Amino acid sequence: MSVPQFSTRIMNTSGNVIREVLKLAEQSHIISFAGGFPSPNSFPVTQVNEIINELLQKSGPEILQYGSSEGFPAFREYLAAWLTGQGITATPDEVLITSGAQQVIDYMAKAFLNPGDGVIVENPTYLAALNVFKSYEAEIIPINGDANGVNLVELEKAAASGKAKMVYLVPTFANPTGVTTPVESRKKIVEILDKYGLIMLEDDPYSRLRYSGNPLPAVKSFDKTGNVVYTSSFSKLISPGMRVGYVTARHDILRKLVLGKQCTDVHTNNIGQRVVFEFCRRGILEPHIEKIIAQYKKQRDLMLDMCKQHLPAETTWNVPEGGLFLWLTLPGGINTTDLLPIAIEREKVAFIPGKPFFADGSGENSMRLNFSNASPEGIAEGMKRLGGVIKEILKNK
Amino acid sequence: MSVPQFSTRIMNTSGNVIREVLKLAEQSHIISFAGGFPSPNSFPVTQVNEIINELLQKSGPEILQYGSSEGFPAFREYLAAWLTGQGITATPDEVLITSGAQQVIDYMAKAFLNPGDGVIVENPTYLAALNVFKSYEAEIIPINGDANGVNLVELEKAAASGKAKMVYLVPTFANPTGVTTPVESRKKIVEILDKYGLIMLEDDPYSRLRYSGNPLPAVKSFDKTGNVVYTSSFSKLISPGMRVGYVTARHDILRKLVLGKQCTDVHTNNIGQRVVFEFCRRGILEPHIEKIIAQYKKQRDLMLDMCKQHLPAETTWNVPEGGLFLWLTLPGGINTTDLLPIAIEREKVAFIPGKPFFADGSGENSMRLNFSNASPEGIAEGMKRLGGVIKEILKNK
Repeated sequence: MSVPQFSTRIMNTSGNVIREVLKLAEQSHIISFAGGFPSPNSFPVTQVNEIINELLQKSGPEILQYGSSEGFPAFREYLAAWLTGQGITATPDEVLITSGAQQVIDYMAKAFLNPGDGVIVENPTYLAALNVFKSYEAEIIPINGDANGVNLVELEKAAASGKAKMVYLVPTFANPTGVTTPVESRKKIVEILDKYGLIMLEDDPYSRLRYSGNPLPAVKSFDKTGNVVYTSSFSKLISPGMRVGYVTARHDILRKLVLGKQCTDVHTNNIGQRVVFEFCRRGILEPHIEKIIAQYKKQRDLMLDMCKQHLPAETTWNVPEGGLFLWLTLPGGINTTDLLPIAIEREKVAFIPGKPFFADGSGENSMRLNFSNASPEGIAEGMKRLGGVIKEILKNK
Repeated sequence: MSVPQFSTRIMNTSGNVIREVLKLAEQSHIISFAGGFPSPNSFPVTQVNEIINELLQKSGPEILQYGSSEGFPAFREYLAAWLTGQGITATPDEVLITSGAQQVIDYMAKAFLNPGDGVIVENPTYLAALNVFKSYEAEIIPINGDANGVNLVELEKAAASGKAKMVYLVPTFANPTGVTTPVESRKKIVEILDKYGLIMLEDDPYSRLRYSGNPLPAVKSFDKTGNVVYTSSFSKLISPGMRVGYVTARHDILRKLVLGKQCTDVHTNNIGQRVVFEFCRRGILEPHIEKIIAQYKKQRDLMLDMCKQHLPAETTWNVPEGGLFLWLTLPGGINTTDLLPIAIEREKVAFIPGKPFFADGSGENSMRLNFSNASPEGIAEGMKRLGGVIKEILKNK
């Protein structure tokens, strides 16, 4: 008997390499700056509960029955109108409700990527997106960025190489760097896409969480050809546990994404869809966002203060206008992957090492810190401990 | 500018060809025997609502937060113990909670199938599984069956050909034929898998819905090597709208399926998982299953009576011991794909033509009828109308 072999695709897919270490971070006595988790005290539990009661009493059998793969029709209509109001012209037929925005990365890869097709990404970028593209045996083409987002000269050069089919960007409060691409660059990105016939996935989970500065139009709002596909999620705004996101795309593309949906989880869970729709429709979402923005802004500012107070002088970090993360570069050749188990086991504080975000394998001295999940006390104490262990390692080097 | 091309994979994936016609069947004045929908009056709305209230009051922030990709730990433990009690030995680490069982077909294809790899399926089989395998550019190897399930000589011949890597079967109350594979054949299937080193996905969404005869052990219960992967779902037992299923597999395989989960919807929605777990844990599920079995048995028997009463004499159908479907073969060269729009538009009654279930493109004179969704009155009236239009077409041929 021979043993069945796994596919090339799945052998190509790394799990999250630091996953096992981070499982330790889930213990309650650990102060975690690791995941991209919303604050546990930000969840609108009572409102969710009231809405579910009303929905089940009014439409119980409909909600517990199968739904359509495209999503709840009235929710698609709502999102199309809302997106159009934001400058992203969309009809309800151009909106698909998904089980979070991560699923959209998978559907886009499924719809467009043959093995060997190139995907241009920022270096660093969202590590789970890298995993998806690897799982489709794509060639990842990392290009560098700076405080103004992706380097447009490098982007055009990569596009002109003929190797790329898709561009994946998080233009607003990028994960992990927190960087936001300015308006002029957004226009230029669309010109490059159109010039070279590339498709782009604009991943936008964080833009509503803005603590300073002015909102920017989405890259998709400048798109006239439909080459930009836009996805967002309610995970950071209402609840990730409900698994509700959406994508808007040109109709022919959307039909292919719907095929992906039909072949995987058939449709997004109805309770999640309907609760989120009621949050939108009843005007509960906007004041809720204002509330969490006030909370997260304080936590961001506190963590920035703690960076100044506790980190060694040569450490650098960004001051993000929104999102959930600070991005740190450490001095003195500190390897953050090696630092993590020490930080967790001895100091009871967790973060994400930067390396997995880099498609080119660099970033050994960087780390991502989340400021939404820990309490203010946890942020103060955790940053003190983290700074302490970093300084100690530097001293002994 | 060139236009980005879709992947070979997605161009290979047909949507449900009869989808547009069936959208008409969703209108309320249509009597639908088409989908595999549970009865709308079977849903335990009040119990679901009470459980959600308790859960949100007790553990609201935990439920609205991200969960682990593997699923809620206590639910995995419960399922492992329950499966072990059913002869399917499993540890909690060998169980993954999924967004329905359809998703497991996708994850298995992702984990095992390179383009061109062969998948042995029954002819006919579940049409959405065929779509998944096509979306992975697999070679579908259809083998015939009869009232005893898959033909074992054909299965061994296909296995021996060296072209196949995976076997996909619905051994209990197969979709669409309703056929159940006997115990001796189940043992023989495992022998063939082990002899030729094939992996098998046992898709088992219907086995708990048994109206007559005795329960059979799963194919997986005879598996000593871990080459059989077993999936089931709570869609037909509690609610499809909550999207909760599960898979159990040998640990190395399960880890690959978890990678699939991480790359797609990250984890199954928490409310659905927790409600289903409470149904299991509190002993609500078993009496609920007894209740829907009593209802569906009556509906099956009524539909069988109506077949006798209204269908032309040469029509044949199965008498399924469980599940949700009757499978009909019509006389006189009637093409059921052509019949469908006439049945819907003129007679306001819907079914699924048999052809899409056949990987070899045959089955033009067959159809699948669902008996769980329509009311008894609907079954009586719909079958009368369906029999009438079939007889009329036969007369005019």
